[in-house]
Amino acid sequence: MRDSNRTWHFAARPDGEPTMDTFDLREGDVPDPQFGQLLVRVRYLSVDPYMRGRMRDSESYAEPWAVGDPLQGGVVGEVVASESDEYEAGDLVTGRGTWSDYTVLDADDAAPVDPDVADLPAYLGILGMPGRTAYFGLLNVGDPRPGDTVVVSGAAGAVGSTVGQIAGLNGCRVVGFAGSDEKTAWLTDDLGFDAAINYKTTDDYGAALDDAAPEGIDVYFDNVGGPITDAVFPKLNVDARVAVCGQIAHYNDESVPTGPRKLPQLIAPRAKVQGLLVSDYATRFGAAKAQLESWVASGDLQHRETVVEGLEHAPDAFLGLFSGENIGKQVVRVSE
Amino acid sequence: MRDSNRTWHFAARPDGEPTMDTFDLREGDVPDPQFGQLLVRVRYLSVDPYMRGRMRDSESYAEPWAVGDPLQGGVVGEVVASESDEYEAGDLVTGRGTWSDYTVLDADDAAPVDPDVADLPAYLGILGMPGRTAYFGLLNVGDPRPGDTVVVSGAAGAVGSTVGQIAGLNGCRVVGFAGSDEKTAWLTDDLGFDAAINYKTTDDYGAALDDAAPEGIDVYFDNVGGPITDAVFPKLNVDARVAVCGQIAHYNDESVPTGPRKLPQLIAPRAKVQGLLVSDYATRFGAAKAQLESWVASGDLQHRETVVEGLEHAPDAFLGLFSGENIGKQVVRVSE
Repeated sequence: MRDSNRTWHFAARPDGEPTMDTFDLREGDVPDPQFGQLLVRVRYLSVDPYMRGRMRDSESYAEPWAVGDPLQGGVVGEVVASESDEYEAGDLVTGRGTWSDYTVLDADDAAPVDPDVADLPAYLGILGMPGRTAYFGLLNVGDPRPGDTVVVSGAAGAVGSTVGQIAGLNGCRVVGFAGSDEKTAWLTDDLGFDAAINYKTTDDYGAALDDAAPEGIDVYFDNVGGPITDAVFPKLNVDARVAVCGQIAHYNDESVPTGPRKLPQLIAPRAKVQGLLVSDYATRFGAAKAQLESWVASGDLQHRETVVEGLEHAPDAFLGLFSGENIGKQVVRVSE
Repeated sequence: MRDSNRTWHFAARPDGEPTMDTFDLREGDVPDPQFGQLLVRVRYLSVDPYMRGRMRDSESYAEPWAVGDPLQGGVVGEVVASESDEYEAGDLVTGRGTWSDYTVLDADDAAPVDPDVADLPAYLGILGMPGRTAYFGLLNVGDPRPGDTVVVSGAAGAVGSTVGQIAGLNGCRVVGFAGSDEKTAWLTDDLGFDAAINYKTTDDYGAALDDAAPEGIDVYFDNVGGPITDAVFPKLNVDARVAVCGQIAHYNDESVPTGPRKLPQLIAPRAKVQGLLVSDYATRFGAAKAQLESWVASGDLQHRETVVEGLEHAPDAFLGLFSGENIGKQVVRVSE
């Protein structure tokens, strides 16, 4: 066990794409948990696209990081010291900590992890925030009905891969956009997507959608934005629902991006476009967890994680999200 | 009474803004009503922005006009010959006819008009399709709640002026965009809008909204699109609703217009944007009519019509919609 603690800090606001200058690894003492807290040795750390928003100096749903702050995110790890009756040393937990070897969690904000249900990284993906985002975003905003055609962008990511599978369980035709042949093969061969489009090798997304979604699009679950979304909108069916979960194509834009106007395309289909944040569904997280665990246990939902080795490579893992390095959930293994 | 019948026909599909070459006035015989039909002498004829969509050769909610077709739209007039038990000569009716001196209506599709409730042109505006559009679009898609701030574009038009007043009746703060000082004065002085912005003389719509809607925007009823809409979206509050009723700024665009991307702006506020067509609410038109007539009778709803004199000037009346010539509903007086 290390007797010091490394933590990634937010070194500078990026201008456009973050670089290594955005991050600063500092070494310090292992923190002491206070009353009600747990000291956790981090096993796995989550990097997520929404974190790019916290790097901006502007109000949004997630508080902006101040320059110098430790970077924060989901972790899974082992309790090494407990100042709470709820957990004891040796327990495995998940919660929101720092990008560190050791992090302190409030016991009230931590949740137990059962390695018999799924491997630890899954608790940062399909059984964590991304899985809940997929569950509530698809079912509550997308509102899929049997026979619907559901299109998912970022379909091989943590959220998208879960969305597509839940849509399939709901009797929908499922079409995914992803950025490599390995990813599209995973979607169709392993996850049961009806069709998948490699957006990096396909020239005409509209024509590809004509093939893959010949009856039009009833639900679009958007993680990406940009040209994929531009191709989807003209094919929305009457009463279509668009869940805007993410817009990773635009997160590094420093000015407001432009593109084809979409509001004129909404009138004829009376389509509904709605932004979503998983935190709005917090009172129902327990129900989602039970359902997702059940689907994972039964094999109805498959999941996959891309593991970057070593806390020192956490920035690479984060940056890899924007170039699509990950298949499934991107995590960092911090310790064995 | 004329013993011939003039009818405007669709002469050529416009490229961009329609011109007089788009229209062709032909003279022919007064038609004979068949069984179940009425021959109506048109008093007033409606011109509406959505008609621009029917001039395109593409599928949409309203069937495209074929070149050579008579132009169609809402009319109010007097029955001069009836082949139906429901109406007799002398009755005043409204329905969907042609841009003509005389038009034939199916009695089943006609509705009686009571000049004691409102002047005839009102049956093409606040008591017609525009009024119903405002009623259902605001109440069902916009879903205004007391204390909300409601912003309306095209606020001095037939739909927008009704939307703003209904929002006011619902206890909302109401802000309208319109294109002249005469229009903005009408909104604030006569219709009870809390603020109105002249979009032709205001440079910075965002700053104007900061003044007019200091608590942000809960409901946006969009008839226009373009830069007004671009200024509204960044100010949407959490849980905001956007009703996309019209996009008149873009109706004459021949290619897909571009502008600031809006989907990234929807995530933090979890805003909902939805297209609307009044025809979806057809089963409830009776209830809307009763409510709107009651509000007009009580004076809770004001209305105004801009009357262009003479069937021969119907194209001017239509073209005037795109330059904002009308205050309230634009109609054409065809006969006394």
